[in-house]
Amino acid sequence: MKGGSWVIHSPTVTSTKFWPGTLGRVANHAMVIARLVDGEGIDRGIHNFLVQIRSMTDHTLMNGVECGDIGPKIGYNNMDNGFARFTHVHIPRRNMAMRFATVDERGTYRLQNTSDAASKVAYITMMQVRAHIVNEAGKNLAISCTIAIRYSALRRQGFGNADQDVSPSTQELQILDYKQQQYRLLHLLAASYCFFFTGRHILTKLKSIEQRLVSQKGTVTKTEVGDIHASTSALKSFCTTITADGMEDCRKSCGGHGFLHCSGLPEIVCSYLQSPTVEGDNQMLPQQVFKVLLKLYHTAEHGNTQALSEWEVCDASYLIEPIRSYFIVTGTRTAMCRVYSLEEFMNVPNLLDAYRHRSARLLVETSREIENKIKQGSSMNEAWNSSLIRMAKVSQAHSLYLLIKNFFDGISSEKARSIGLEEAVVLQDLGTLFALFWIEKDIGDFLEDGYMNSAHCQLLREAILKMLDKVRPNAVGLVDARDFSDFRLKSALGRYDGNVYSSIMETALKEPLNDSEPGEGYKHLKRLIVDGIGVYSGSMSSRL
Amino acid sequence: MKGGSWVIHSPTVTSTKFWPGTLGRVANHAMVIARLVDGEGIDRGIHNFLVQIRSMTDHTLMNGVECGDIGPKIGYNNMDNGFARFTHVHIPRRNMAMRFATVDERGTYRLQNTSDAASKVAYITMMQVRAHIVNEAGKNLAISCTIAIRYSALRRQGFGNADQDVSPSTQELQILDYKQQQYRLLHLLAASYCFFFTGRHILTKLKSIEQRLVSQKGTVTKTEVGDIHASTSALKSFCTTITADGMEDCRKSCGGHGFLHCSGLPEIVCSYLQSPTVEGDNQMLPQQVFKVLLKLYHTAEHGNTQALSEWEVCDASYLIEPIRSYFIVTGTRTAMCRVYSLEEFMNVPNLLDAYRHRSARLLVETSREIENKIKQGSSMNEAWNSSLIRMAKVSQAHSLYLLIKNFFDGISSEKARSIGLEEAVVLQDLGTLFALFWIEKDIGDFLEDGYMNSAHCQLLREAILKMLDKVRPNAVGLVDARDFSDFRLKSALGRYDGNVYSSIMETALKEPLNDSEPGEGYKHLKRLIVDGIGVYSGSMSSRL
Repeated sequence: MKGGSWVIHSPTVTSTKFWPGTLGRVANHAMVIARLVDGEGIDRGIHNFLVQIRSMTDHTLMNGVECGDIGPKIGYNNMDNGFARFTHVHIPRRNMAMRFATVDERGTYRLQNTSDAASKVAYITMMQVRAHIVNEAGKNLAISCTIAIRYSALRRQGFGNADQDVSPSTQELQILDYKQQQYRLLHLLAASYCFFFTGRHILTKLKSIEQRLVSQKGTVTKTEVGDIHASTSALKSFCTTITADGMEDCRKSCGGHGFLHCSGLPEIVCSYLQSPTVEGDNQMLPQQVFKVLLKLYHTAEHGNTQALSEWEVCDASYLIEPIRSYFIVTGTRTAMCRVYSLEEFMNVPNLLDAYRHRSARLLVETSREIENKIKQGSSMNEAWNSSLIRMAKVSQAHSLYLLIKNFFDGISSEKARSIGLEEAVVLQDLGTLFALFWIEKDIGDFLEDGYMNSAHCQLLREAILKMLDKVRPNAVGLVDARDFSDFRLKSALGRYDGNVYSSIMETALKEPLNDSEPGEGYKHLKRLIVDGIGVYSGSMSSRL
Repeated sequence: MKGGSWVIHSPTVTSTKFWPGTLGRVANHAMVIARLVDGEGIDRGIHNFLVQIRSMTDHTLMNGVECGDIGPKIGYNNMDNGFARFTHVHIPRRNMAMRFATVDERGTYRLQNTSDAASKVAYITMMQVRAHIVNEAGKNLAISCTIAIRYSALRRQGFGNADQDVSPSTQELQILDYKQQQYRLLHLLAASYCFFFTGRHILTKLKSIEQRLVSQKGTVTKTEVGDIHASTSALKSFCTTITADGMEDCRKSCGGHGFLHCSGLPEIVCSYLQSPTVEGDNQMLPQQVFKVLLKLYHTAEHGNTQALSEWEVCDASYLIEPIRSYFIVTGTRTAMCRVYSLEEFMNVPNLLDAYRHRSARLLVETSREIENKIKQGSSMNEAWNSSLIRMAKVSQAHSLYLLIKNFFDGISSEKARSIGLEEAVVLQDLGTLFALFWIEKDIGDFLEDGYMNSAHCQLLREAILKMLDKVRPNAVGLVDARDFSDFRLKSALGRYDGNVYSSIMETALKEPLNDSEPGEGYKHLKRLIVDGIGVYSGSMSSRL
């Protein structure tokens, strides 16, 4: 602070702010987070300041401000991501955001008494963003599935196995009838519906917390806020990973034509690639999840009734019972999957039991692993670091339980309301496929402690094949139901009318390289083909 | 055929050829594969024809030929992928490739007697392409690892866990010191070396077959050709999948800056995305692999000594012994992993045993599954289709055995020759990490039949952490050893000198959007900010 106003100063390369959207060319004000040095010269840590960066009359940069676009990216290039640096930029004192702390004209710094609620509301905003990301993951996956599934229903190739007699009259198979194409796409279709229900669940929960805080009616415990922080962190990490990878797999599943921009997939696949990185990198978030669940683990271990009751209303409450049973029967096989038939394997409570058990086991083992390492002389940091790989598994296991639970709960609560009874059956099949797919994908987790055995593996594979058969006839209907317009899809492969090939050809003809014949590039070719440049004439030595 | 010359005719959208490189704007001749209808009007199936598509003097398109670029793609946009269609294009009779069949002036079609060798040589070309793709996979992965590992050694973030006291003097951790960053990158580094050794092994093998065929000294059996077809198919599928996903994970591991074009990663990641699709789609190839291995399975089952001896010189020979033991002790637990300590787990023969057992079990089970389904009334097509998902696992298991075997064999044979003894130890560690990583990734395969148990899972995790610790100090050296120049890397993040941040800033300043202030786009913003367009003035009704 200088003479009753602030001086913002960050002129070096490493103090340059990078990335904020619209910062480079569009924005005329920026909210800058900077260390506050008060009138006495004391560093009070980071605070928020509103900084005008461009003139409101002619958009020129303010004195001392340097801004610009950061250049091309792998995707999302319509967004003007920018950089900014400041050399002795002066702004008025009142441009500091003073809700939590004030600085008066003389430079005196004072912390304000703010209610606990106010700080929690700020916290909730971050979680709402993550919940919206989960919702958007479902939507992005649905768009990619629409393109890939419509194209896979239209594209025909092959006649079953090569030994079969092929007569010209036989029509080739729709590629969506191959089991590996179904295995590849239908679990993603299921995920796109699944994420929708969880997004809604989380947003409703956050709304309820926010309302209680703002109205100051009803209590909101730290446990409840921590729990939803764990849920949103775990889900943001898992759902955006599945979506980014899944969208790209949708693209690959279209073969060569998925490589074309006119398939609509490159643009959305590449732009979506930001999501695993922004708002908490997917590799970092599991630590946040684990920190919260570790508290639940300790509470369950020490059995404090009051503390435990706070957990009862939480998403993570499903862990309490299996954690406790794990403690009571320590050292022996604590649970076994009591499924002996295909029917039982496709039964929702059995599937949820399996996911519940896996989550709890991984949480307990990882927590104990850290404790043991510390007992054996590791520092907390070393122990923590060496458990990061397993924390990622805990976080993923937690996400999957929540996703499957919310999926089936969502279907039940909407049945005979927004969803007809027959549609509910179809969604139930999708949910079952999703749950089975992810058990098989992580089957090691279910085999390691003997919860499942080789007979279960066999049943599981049969169950998945069965569910693929059940979902296949509804696959096109399920993507059509999302009702994305052709305008939205911008895809030659995913068109509602199926005119794929003429549409690809039309786009090719519009390529500017095709505007003229023989085209601009020919001048270089001509030197080689007609003028004889590069033709070898004489000995090597003449060219030295 | 018409009047002693050929008429090429494919004028419709669906008969338009799409994709060949340079076809659109550059090439003046194309090798066209077309159905041959001879002078008697008989369809003789597909043959090759050399078709001139552009004039040699002015590059204009020949009569009846339509060519063009197919438009923008997700990557590899420097390549002029094109389309071509032909409306009654006449070409001379001798432009037909007549090695295997001829057509004379009167239109009489004759098959030529060609040696078995000639057709096998043609077959070998396809396999050589796949072997080169494996080699290139290793190189592409190495480039991405160079960028990601150099950046991860330079970039610092965090102080261990959040509870730790942070003083300003403490330096933050290199992100490569986090276990999950190591877990993410070091197995890819290992793969980049691993693919090199297998690429070399396969290319050497193909060379030997080719030489025997051409010189007609030594025999080449169908079994041998089939075996190398299985190896190249399995490896092309697995290595390009791992590389495409791995390169993208290298990009993500650089956080936000990996999203920037100047990181060098977007261009190579997106261009590499063609590889899982071209030269046999990665999802199709496992069927080819399985068809060959199915023959081995039947040979091993029926025990024909002559047939078996042909397999002995093959890559897949490692499967014979475990398949046979699987038959002898059917129904009981056939093998168990005899590893009881961390040291034993990191022992190469033990690792190879595990992979050998897994490969053989999956092959036997999948083969029996198909037999059983047919016995139960399924058609061959149905049975085959429902086993496609498992065939992919067989193919992957086969690849992994070969990769690990060739990796360790390659190190042994080069030890004290091109590789010093100390370097050999480092490579051995990489190989061990690679082998351990992929057991853990597919741990369900090793647990399902009781080959491994929960104690092995625990040892496996410890072994991986141990290998990460061992490889970490050599990580930067191992990428530097590949010796990619900055010119080749084209990466602000992967620069040899480590001047990452100033290099990013330099690129940003070169962005054309930053050339002028306030820039071209301001005319639109001005209407909103200064001219007041969009400011609400009056009731809604006035705007209707």
